[in-house]
Amino acid sequence: MENDTLKALVIDSKSFLEHWQGHRRLTRRVIEAFPEKDLYSFTIGGMRTFSEMVMELIKIAKPGIAGVVSGTWKEIDHMPTPDTKEEILALWDEITESIDTLWPQITSSRFLEKDVAFGLYENYIYGSLLYFVDNEIHHRGQGYVYLRALGITPPPFWER
Amino acid sequence: MENDTLKALVIDSKSFLEHWQGHRRLTRRVIEAFPEKDLYSFTIGGMRTFSEMVMELIKIAKPGIAGVVSGTWKEIDHMPTPDTKEEILALWDEITESIDTLWPQITSSRFLEKDVAFGLYENYIYGSLLYFVDNEIHHRGQGYVYLRALGITPPPFWER
Repeated sequence: MENDTLKALVIDSKSFLEHWQGHRRLTRRVIEAFPEKDLYSFTIGGMRTFSEMVMELIKIAKPGIAGVVSGTWKEIDHMPTPDTKEEILALWDEITESIDTLWPQITSSRFLEKDVAFGLYENYIYGSLLYFVDNEIHHRGQGYVYLRALGITPPPFWER
Repeated sequence: MENDTLKALVIDSKSFLEHWQGHRRLTRRVIEAFPEKDLYSFTIGGMRTFSEMVMELIKIAKPGIAGVVSGTWKEIDHMPTPDTKEEILALWDEITESIDTLWPQITSSRFLEKDVAFGLYENYIYGSLLYFVDNEIHHRGQGYVYLRALGITPPPFWER
């Protein structure tokens, strides 16, 4: 018989939004910490540049929040990488704002629904949301190594 | 007036446990992927070796789960780093098991309580738990760069 405490609420909608936006603020600081040249060119071990990793995060978050709210998933893989750090940051800020605007429209029951994110990944909505944030932490951690390899001190991980 | 949907349950206790243990399984595979010599010696940009990062995760998770359950936070910073990868993995598995055993003892109201984790970090319990997992994802992402720099393909991020 399943323990009833296993059904306890751990994270509610407001806390999850704060969790995600806190990470987005930190990722923004990591993007800022990169010299523009290195953002677009520095790599280790055949991995992508940090600008390409950030574009992956953008291509997930922008249609991701829309899909979570509406159930309609749009691919934006064709979106070109902006030519400057400033433009990447502007795109980042635009999505941050759109997450804040759209989030309260997520209905209470939506988080526990199953859906096929981007028409490809079947998961509960909360699972897809966790994946979006986890993937951001994962790649940002890689950005930290790039910064250290470049002799740049990254922003503190615990500051959100 | 606050939107009521912001109080909706996103993640319950059982899902959080699965979230954490899924990440722990992946981190275990990343530890395994390191040749023992490199686990203890390889670094980039003056950062710690992956064995030291893993020891940080161990020194958080072991007393962390105990503190979450009991409200008593023990420091284990003095714990020595085992000499072999096999011993690190055994320690990892021991903690994984202890998380599974202790988790159902967390009372329903505990997740929303404020506490001072390790006597140092004031946060809601759910916030400290998120931090434990986020910190693991962060450092494991760094381990991925180490593996790539060593010419080793890391385990897929999405496999848990």
